[in-house]
Amino acid sequence: MTQTLEPTDTDVAASDAQAVVAKWLADFEAALAARDIPAVTSMFATDSYWRDLVAFTWNLKTVEGRDAIADMLGARLDATSPSTFRTSEPATEDGGVYTAFLNFETEVGRGEGLLRLRDAGDGAGPLAWTLLTTLQELKGHEEPLGDTRVMGAVHGQSTDTRSWAERRADEEAELGYAAQPYVLVIGGGQGGIALGARLRQLGVPSIVVDKHDRPGDQWRNRYKSLCLHDPVWYDHLPYLPFPANWPVFAPKDKIGDWLEFYTRVMEVPYWSKTTCTSASYDEAAGKWTVQINRDGEELTLYPTQLVLATGMSGKANVPTFDGQDVFAGEQHHSSAHPGPDNYVGKKVVVIGANNSSHDICKALVENGIDTTMVQRSSTHIVKSDSLMDLGLGDLYSERAVASGMTTKKADLTFASLPYRIMHEFQIPIYNAIRERDKDFYSRLEAAGFDLDFGDDDSGLFVKYLRRGSGYYIDVGASELVANGTIKLAHGGVDHLTENSVVLTDGTELPADVVVYATGYGSMNGWAADLMGQDVADRVGKVWGLGSDTTKDPGPWEGEQRNMWKPTQQQNLWFHGGNLHQSRHYSLYLALQLKARFEGLDTPVYGLQEVHHLS
Amino acid sequence: MTQTLEPTDTDVAASDAQAVVAKWLADFEAALAARDIPAVTSMFATDSYWRDLVAFTWNLKTVEGRDAIADMLGARLDATSPSTFRTSEPATEDGGVYTAFLNFETEVGRGEGLLRLRDAGDGAGPLAWTLLTTLQELKGHEEPLGDTRVMGAVHGQSTDTRSWAERRADEEAELGYAAQPYVLVIGGGQGGIALGARLRQLGVPSIVVDKHDRPGDQWRNRYKSLCLHDPVWYDHLPYLPFPANWPVFAPKDKIGDWLEFYTRVMEVPYWSKTTCTSASYDEAAGKWTVQINRDGEELTLYPTQLVLATGMSGKANVPTFDGQDVFAGEQHHSSAHPGPDNYVGKKVVVIGANNSSHDICKALVENGIDTTMVQRSSTHIVKSDSLMDLGLGDLYSERAVASGMTTKKADLTFASLPYRIMHEFQIPIYNAIRERDKDFYSRLEAAGFDLDFGDDDSGLFVKYLRRGSGYYIDVGASELVANGTIKLAHGGVDHLTENSVVLTDGTELPADVVVYATGYGSMNGWAADLMGQDVADRVGKVWGLGSDTTKDPGPWEGEQRNMWKPTQQQNLWFHGGNLHQSRHYSLYLALQLKARFEGLDTPVYGLQEVHHLS
Repeated sequence: MTQTLEPTDTDVAASDAQAVVAKWLADFEAALAARDIPAVTSMFATDSYWRDLVAFTWNLKTVEGRDAIADMLGARLDATSPSTFRTSEPATEDGGVYTAFLNFETEVGRGEGLLRLRDAGDGAGPLAWTLLTTLQELKGHEEPLGDTRVMGAVHGQSTDTRSWAERRADEEAELGYAAQPYVLVIGGGQGGIALGARLRQLGVPSIVVDKHDRPGDQWRNRYKSLCLHDPVWYDHLPYLPFPANWPVFAPKDKIGDWLEFYTRVMEVPYWSKTTCTSASYDEAAGKWTVQINRDGEELTLYPTQLVLATGMSGKANVPTFDGQDVFAGEQHHSSAHPGPDNYVGKKVVVIGANNSSHDICKALVENGIDTTMVQRSSTHIVKSDSLMDLGLGDLYSERAVASGMTTKKADLTFASLPYRIMHEFQIPIYNAIRERDKDFYSRLEAAGFDLDFGDDDSGLFVKYLRRGSGYYIDVGASELVANGTIKLAHGGVDHLTENSVVLTDGTELPADVVVYATGYGSMNGWAADLMGQDVADRVGKVWGLGSDTTKDPGPWEGEQRNMWKPTQQQNLWFHGGNLHQSRHYSLYLALQLKARFEGLDTPVYGLQEVHHLS
Repeated sequence: MTQTLEPTDTDVAASDAQAVVAKWLADFEAALAARDIPAVTSMFATDSYWRDLVAFTWNLKTVEGRDAIADMLGARLDATSPSTFRTSEPATEDGGVYTAFLNFETEVGRGEGLLRLRDAGDGAGPLAWTLLTTLQELKGHEEPLGDTRVMGAVHGQSTDTRSWAERRADEEAELGYAAQPYVLVIGGGQGGIALGARLRQLGVPSIVVDKHDRPGDQWRNRYKSLCLHDPVWYDHLPYLPFPANWPVFAPKDKIGDWLEFYTRVMEVPYWSKTTCTSASYDEAAGKWTVQINRDGEELTLYPTQLVLATGMSGKANVPTFDGQDVFAGEQHHSSAHPGPDNYVGKKVVVIGANNSSHDICKALVENGIDTTMVQRSSTHIVKSDSLMDLGLGDLYSERAVASGMTTKKADLTFASLPYRIMHEFQIPIYNAIRERDKDFYSRLEAAGFDLDFGDDDSGLFVKYLRRGSGYYIDVGASELVANGTIKLAHGGVDHLTENSVVLTDGTELPADVVVYATGYGSMNGWAADLMGQDVADRVGKVWGLGSDTTKDPGPWEGEQRNMWKPTQQQNLWFHGGNLHQSRHYSLYLALQLKARFEGLDTPVYGLQEVHHLS
């Protein structure tokens, strides 16, 4: 989604670019070493953005402009004690923007980053426009990987004569009983599993609990036509990338199988068939008390840290309409929709017009079922091919892989675009997509479909970050809407009768089945269920940026609310998102947890304020 | 194991090396194109070796010297029609040997190879010393990988409304019943699974059958202390390498889990709890009739191709001794040994002094069990660390990965060393190992342990290729032998009494338990069981090179007998070996099967003769 900012090869200026960046870095490092904050900020442009993921701030934090940078450094520079900023590969220059991947160190860790310099043409030379700094590992607590991987076989005479399987079995028998986990992760979809794998690697005693029968059922139990809407290159989990023969858009059951076996081979301590019934924080003890039902067994866990990884698609948002009690047919939320097989010969009305609704409607009409989609508000549609080509292709595609782009570099590039200006780079992409797919959009509008491209025409990804809803990545359903195979109705639902859905304009839609494809609530709803409304309100709304656009009220917050970072409830964390986010942000969350487990000082700079309750 | 032949970076001569190789390749290609066999052979040294894996010969075949090369080309050049030989990366030069990785094409496929030129100093310029040519894919039948991977989700309106899981279930219900497999693979350890994955990728209908409850039980069911003796870098399976946090020497249960996981995610059609009771070949029909018991259900399969992948460690070799019927304790083959737990307080005698014996004895004494190892003949011992550093390090190690060595390049390099001269390159390595571990070997000999380094001091890998036995990769047991913790006895077994093992010299070893760590028979023993002794004899001995050394009688055969290539029994194949061989040679076996499945002409050059029955 970032091709206008992509580093490109410009052989002519390559050595110049490297020299420019190296000079800036040397000056930057000297100013930091001298604790000369005015000198540091003078190296940033007036409009500049420093995004830090844990390395400086023990937070996920974007500071915007010189004053904010100065404030952050005033609080954090001494303790962070950053040093040895080096380019990790030759810097590049494109259109007056110098781009470089970085390595650096801090007092407690090693980091990577991405720097963009821009010459304002005022003779001051190139100044920093965007800087990303990320913590990658803690000194003395590096992950056993590659050279430092475990031996497996014990060479020489062993005092512990148990086999690996026996040690694993003993550990499983003890954890949660004789030994308490430091971290309890509630929710074992891709988010919980990825975090569990990282915590395992980092040696943090943790348990991931999940209500389903086995890992992967979070996907298996969804409607049968479901496939990932993001392509494989965007979806890799930590440590174990999908193989080269993995489908571009993996079917739900195949992803389910992958998650199940990933959990096993990563040795993630994972309790299936387990629900949490309540959780409360004991401030004095600095621990949670969590009531658990593990496959019928009631027990209490006392973790220090609690992570809600129940997913932004975790808690179904089921609307209330008059007449739901008199409706004689079947009604269910999209998350409980089994697929079309039982509905042949019936009339189905699907409320909502976003991703799930399109997927469900497509599968229904492909089985010859009379299906009506009720569009209540406008939807952003982008064709999957166009999104892959124009939106993701430079970072996450076979083309990107062939050009040397790694998942790590792509993730850093992705993370380096400041949320404040991201829409500016997305708007031209979506303008190009609108042009490319002009006929497609015309057909949809001619069929009465109400289209949007986001409040400011910035398209899919920004909409996802702001509200996590309101779009469909088209994999074929839109054509079925355009040609009338999927019937389309408009407006709000007024009430249900015994055998129909009646809209606010009086339109009556005969229905044997009603599917509520009406999305999901804020993740702090889970907190309310578990810990009470007071904790949910203390934490506030989860997700969104404060962009002051539809469903993402201001003020501007600069980072996604409450995700992967400290919240107003001590030792409570939220984790989730798509596979990309589960992969990338699980690292920063795991490092924050590891630092606390090891007793490092972790003063949080700029802890978010709460502006909205849900 | 090949560092003396390793390509090394020599910046000074890099462009020269490339020019030398490019010139040779251009001349070679021109001579091949002109079908001028004398011109081709004149480009090879008198002592030269062309190893072909399927690309020219539809066989695994090493032709040695100009006359043999001329004979092979006379038979195969026209039909192969090779072209476009190009270096795939810059050639290198070291010690007068020019080395280059190659790409080329044939009439039906695309290949890769490795060329070594050597200047004899006679003014003739560098001539070919070793040439490896391998088939990598068949034109028009390329694997769906990377750019060509399947989409997964069906975009647009689908006519097949089944989900991926439903299509898989339907396929599983049909294969072997409504639809016959083209290939039946008997044995589902790493060999059968790797081959099954490749056949799946190539679209060849196949079933892998295995007697165990689930994939991986081949490892899980072994003695509990078992870990791989080969390091992780050597062990990757096709398509899905182990992650960076995988142990160097994976414990057996962890490998078991990986194999199970791998089977599922690669969608290998795999029948567990399945045994074959008989197989016979119908020459007229060109098909096998195979009687199967699938978890109690009797059925008959009619595959065209039959692969025995039951493993070189498949069929236990249990010796017969007088008194085995009167021995009152427990006796079992090492393959059935459960580990030490049930034997605390007992006396255990382990017959044999190779890998399994050492592993088993080590675990027994670590549990305080009185254990005697009976060494019947000399054993080659090499310390795991030394083997990793000096034997494998340049190709298969973290160091190799860091220097840009890929598994593919390592495998090609490994395969490029002609078996005829491999020992010459191994002897110096093992001389270095003897020097490095001098004290260790002295301690072992002082304890009475009978050491060897192979008949010609060429060490472990050559011994493995020749006879597949007679060695131990030391991971600690040898120290326990040296210090007497594991008791050592010598000589053949004369007979057993009710409570002891009596050796030929009259020594009586009190025993509650006897473990026969006495190795495994030739794989054609499996053929005898299934297809009768006549088929086993027609095929002859499996494994070994004909090196005229202990347990590998001559004459010289040039390739491992019967492995991964056509045999004297039409449509019968053998597959197996360690994880490295299962990975690498499964490709060539899969391509041979695919070519036959697609009806390509596959005339076999130099079909091996049978010199030994077992």
